[in-house]
Amino acid sequence: MKTLLHNLQGTITAREPGPGEAVTIRPDVAILIDEGRIAAIDDPGVLRNAHPDARLLDGRGGWALPGLVDPHTHPVFFRTRESEFRMRVQGKSYEEIAAAGGGIRNSARAFREASWDDIVERTYHRIRPFLSFGTTTIEAKSGYALDVAGELLSLRVLKKMQELLPITIVPTFLGAHEVPDDYQDNRDGYVDLVVNEMIPQVAEEQLAVFCDVFCEEHVFTVAQSERILMAALDHGLKPKVHADELAYTGGAELAGRVGAISAEHLVKTSPEGIAAMAAAGVVPVLLPGTTFFLQKSGYAPARAMLDAGLAVALSTDFNPGSCMTQNQQLIMTIAALYMGVTPQEAFRAVTVNSAKAIGLEDTAGVLAPGRAADIAVMAIPNLDYLPYHFGINHARLVIRHGEVVHDASL
Amino acid sequence: MKTLLHNLQGTITAREPGPGEAVTIRPDVAILIDEGRIAAIDDPGVLRNAHPDARLLDGRGGWALPGLVDPHTHPVFFRTRESEFRMRVQGKSYEEIAAAGGGIRNSARAFREASWDDIVERTYHRIRPFLSFGTTTIEAKSGYALDVAGELLSLRVLKKMQELLPITIVPTFLGAHEVPDDYQDNRDGYVDLVVNEMIPQVAEEQLAVFCDVFCEEHVFTVAQSERILMAALDHGLKPKVHADELAYTGGAELAGRVGAISAEHLVKTSPEGIAAMAAAGVVPVLLPGTTFFLQKSGYAPARAMLDAGLAVALSTDFNPGSCMTQNQQLIMTIAALYMGVTPQEAFRAVTVNSAKAIGLEDTAGVLAPGRAADIAVMAIPNLDYLPYHFGINHARLVIRHGEVVHDASL
Repeated sequence: MKTLLHNLQGTITAREPGPGEAVTIRPDVAILIDEGRIAAIDDPGVLRNAHPDARLLDGRGGWALPGLVDPHTHPVFFRTRESEFRMRVQGKSYEEIAAAGGGIRNSARAFREASWDDIVERTYHRIRPFLSFGTTTIEAKSGYALDVAGELLSLRVLKKMQELLPITIVPTFLGAHEVPDDYQDNRDGYVDLVVNEMIPQVAEEQLAVFCDVFCEEHVFTVAQSERILMAALDHGLKPKVHADELAYTGGAELAGRVGAISAEHLVKTSPEGIAAMAAAGVVPVLLPGTTFFLQKSGYAPARAMLDAGLAVALSTDFNPGSCMTQNQQLIMTIAALYMGVTPQEAFRAVTVNSAKAIGLEDTAGVLAPGRAADIAVMAIPNLDYLPYHFGINHARLVIRHGEVVHDASL
Repeated sequence: MKTLLHNLQGTITAREPGPGEAVTIRPDVAILIDEGRIAAIDDPGVLRNAHPDARLLDGRGGWALPGLVDPHTHPVFFRTRESEFRMRVQGKSYEEIAAAGGGIRNSARAFREASWDDIVERTYHRIRPFLSFGTTTIEAKSGYALDVAGELLSLRVLKKMQELLPITIVPTFLGAHEVPDDYQDNRDGYVDLVVNEMIPQVAEEQLAVFCDVFCEEHVFTVAQSERILMAALDHGLKPKVHADELAYTGGAELAGRVGAISAEHLVKTSPEGIAAMAAAGVVPVLLPGTTFFLQKSGYAPARAMLDAGLAVALSTDFNPGSCMTQNQQLIMTIAALYMGVTPQEAFRAVTVNSAKAIGLEDTAGVLAPGRAADIAVMAIPNLDYLPYHFGINHARLVIRHGEVVHDASL
């Protein structure tokens, strides 16, 4: 059964990842969907005449965009951390809270009390809202258990989510998200555990595509991070790096050296880091919602990265400590206002460039015949309007693999 | 016909306007609604036994809050200004855009091309989203026409909105929002027009409760503002002041001197201004979304105002130039993170204190027997969570005068 998505203003899509504003706007077209894929994008009358028995799906005058791609999320955890939010409002910094045993270690302690059913149910309700905002693909990380059993469980939960939810999930192993309480005096011992036990088991069970590491002052050094990522490569897991978020440590250079697909955060990265990423084709994944939510003054140098030719991607960083939102539309607003990223660049950063950041540039983030029919119909008059009218959900109709997964008019 | 709002976690409300965190949390209660008013708040079993024929309304396990009150909005305009947003992203300041004839004057030029029907239709679609975020009362200003006919039309449109939409609208005349193009060389001439023509006609047609003025460098001086507000008082319109937004001019002191019900923005206000407001009982209406959206570094000194005993209110400032959002929940997040306002203070600031800012402290912003049944049921586990999980709409069920006006499960 074919479906004809009609009554659109038209389509807006990028064609290839990269820097810049190149966006293709086709007014007055409809989209023919067949077997979960885009079969054609053409004049509505032409498509209707050629496919008279196609089921009609009303786009209600919106613009059809590719389903958004969110390349960096942490949805697998037990308890939310609004009490730490309150502490930050009252003047404590994220670093102070983490140093006192809060932050990710707080989440890890809580995780040990949780059952499989607890984590499944909560993760389900945390991933579902991404769809409502038009996001049809997410990368999702483990990293809130910090022990062998819990990290494996986290990734198995993500596998279960892929069965339960109509959203594409790319799983990343992030056992090296923080050093847990019981290894605070034996940090290399925890690296041994990640390298010798976690990574081999994750690989053997085929639970993740990527391996990420939090390379940061007070977390994992560049040398520890490199050891973890080289072990991951040996086991067929592709490297990603949390780099230079809170301080400059050379994480971006590490990303270039190990051939990481992406480096994330990069708030404090250096010109050398940007050059290393450019030389190695690393995608910078920027998380301005985190800078906003952590009340930091400086945002990642997005313009320098775009000027260096990097395919800048944007993400929510959805997580309970440093950015509790699933809304990529709002991330576009923050990026525009505080990183000087234009609406067109921001749009590319949440579609084609974020698809590249997770190795899906050939399947997600672009509207084109032959691609999966992952479509977000937005009730906006033009692309500038999407980040401009903020704090509101513009997605009216969200389609994933040809099926309606969110309908705001219902 | 009575209605019993049940299956709630309970109710959260403040009782009286003022500074501080005083919030009354009553777990495990239901709300009996009769003739559009709250008849009782009590144990669900007790209420069910006493009113066995009440229609049941399922609160789906959320917390019932008072319908939010937004005390400062500008919904009556013709064109949105996403092109100026783009200019700001690319480095132009709001002040530069305004000085070059953009900003409010841009809106005023566009307004002259619009018909009654244009303005009615667009204003309708701009006010409707407030309800979806749980806001059941708004103050709404004229001020994007800047001529006699257009300012009167703007207020008549608001009167029409009050017939068409299930939201309480408190109208404010803001003819003195900016000096229009044709009076740039005769600014006092525009003040004459406001004082001699607009205010008398607004009063005669009973189109507004309040008169506001944009007292600001390059807009209206303190002397001009005072002249306008004294004329308004003579005609029975109560004063409000846009004060000290972009620079300190003594607008807060003016608010105290003329006995204004509120002063708005106050980003650059002085200790003397705060003392003047405290002495005169002026409510400060703070608009942190505007500071965020205009990429400004300094937020209004909310803590100093709270410490001075002021009943701080928060508002979206919804308008096409400096804050394009209807989402008071997100305003709470920005206030918490960037003004150090706790979640409890922020809650009071969008309910009981904002009701006081528009003279409705006896009818809106509080859940209590005898009050209008204006209720926002939020899907949150606790009050801290409301600003913490941001960029998402937590309102599941919104009730105004006893009728469901938004239902997120549909």
